[in-house]
Amino acid sequence: MTTLYFHPISNPSLYPLFVAEAAGVKHDRKMVNLQTQEQKGDAYLAVNPFGRVPAMVDGDLAIGESSAIGRYLARQSGSDIYSEDLREAALIDQWVEFIVHHIRANVGRVQFNRFIAPMIGETSDESSIALGEKFLAANLPHVEIALSGDGHLHGDRLTLADIALVAAMEPQFTAKLDLEAFPVLTAWLETMRKQDWYQSVHTHFGSEMGL
Amino acid sequence: MTTLYFHPISNPSLYPLFVAEAAGVKHDRKMVNLQTQEQKGDAYLAVNPFGRVPAMVDGDLAIGESSAIGRYLARQSGSDIYSEDLREAALIDQWVEFIVHHIRANVGRVQFNRFIAPMIGETSDESSIALGEKFLAANLPHVEIALSGDGHLHGDRLTLADIALVAAMEPQFTAKLDLEAFPVLTAWLETMRKQDWYQSVHTHFGSEMGL
Repeated sequence: MTTLYFHPISNPSLYPLFVAEAAGVKHDRKMVNLQTQEQKGDAYLAVNPFGRVPAMVDGDLAIGESSAIGRYLARQSGSDIYSEDLREAALIDQWVEFIVHHIRANVGRVQFNRFIAPMIGETSDESSIALGEKFLAANLPHVEIALSGDGHLHGDRLTLADIALVAAMEPQFTAKLDLEAFPVLTAWLETMRKQDWYQSVHTHFGSEMGL
Repeated sequence: MTTLYFHPISNPSLYPLFVAEAAGVKHDRKMVNLQTQEQKGDAYLAVNPFGRVPAMVDGDLAIGESSAIGRYLARQSGSDIYSEDLREAALIDQWVEFIVHHIRANVGRVQFNRFIAPMIGETSDESSIALGEKFLAANLPHVEIALSGDGHLHGDRLTLADIALVAAMEPQFTAKLDLEAFPVLTAWLETMRKQDWYQSVHTHFGSEMGL
């Protein structure tokens, strides 16, 4: 049995859950209580020495890091959300990496300072918010153009690339992201969030926390 | 023939060069002139619409993003720096991702503000340097412990994980990183930089720029 460790407010840790649902991988989910620092406790460090969510345990294999877990789940399942063809796998990989570095990281900057910091009593860094918004404005046009084709970042079917984008954009409302310039993306996100693999995880980002 | 596009001061773009050398992939190298914004010109955008280095062209396949290129080169070559075993591939993937997110990104923060910004006439952000150094101090111990075994991040041989770490640490001297607390890593980097796959790219970081 596969066990996936996550926290609902950590959008990188939601990615493996979405992938498992989309690929039809049976799994247990364990929520790690970041508020009580459970991720730094001995029991969790035995699972993931990096002390972060997400993590995955499958038999004697235990790994951390979201893209690595997503790729493993997809390959192991044989689902067509990834590809056993090296060239197609490379095209999907480059999109996942682009999303993680240039979209998710900048959504994270804004989300941390606008939503998380006030919640945990830290000072919000306005210059970090401005930097995140500047980089998003520069990088989201690539996504808008790609989705304007047939509604997928790669090919004509749902892949890890699309799921990575949905996970990256989870904090859209809590981070108060202004997506007015990206109508295709905005409509696409609404559609994606109605799909079974999304709804099997949650109805919307933050629902587990009563948001 | 495989063509790899890079710039010698972009350490993410050196990673595919190191991987190609370690995996024995014959390739052409094309330096992209970032000083003249060649990466935003039409010729380069036809190769990589993201407008960044690195990029790779292999026949009709063109991709960007360093980890995606590295994985493709390793799989295509059949080299044992990666693995066709799904479980072992996942273990190597998690290390590469850990290095890229938690080491390379923070080396990049320090390198940008201490070395690049003064060079291009921008103001250095001291708080960004402090943040990068804080995160490096928190994450480098994982690397120090892993290398203290048999000198590899995964298994008993050179893998993509080790090469990712070498590439991440390229700006060690230009970013003036203080590695005094990490003697195993410091000695390991010296050893790695003497290997053929490193020396086939350059004698040291910045040598192409006369550093």
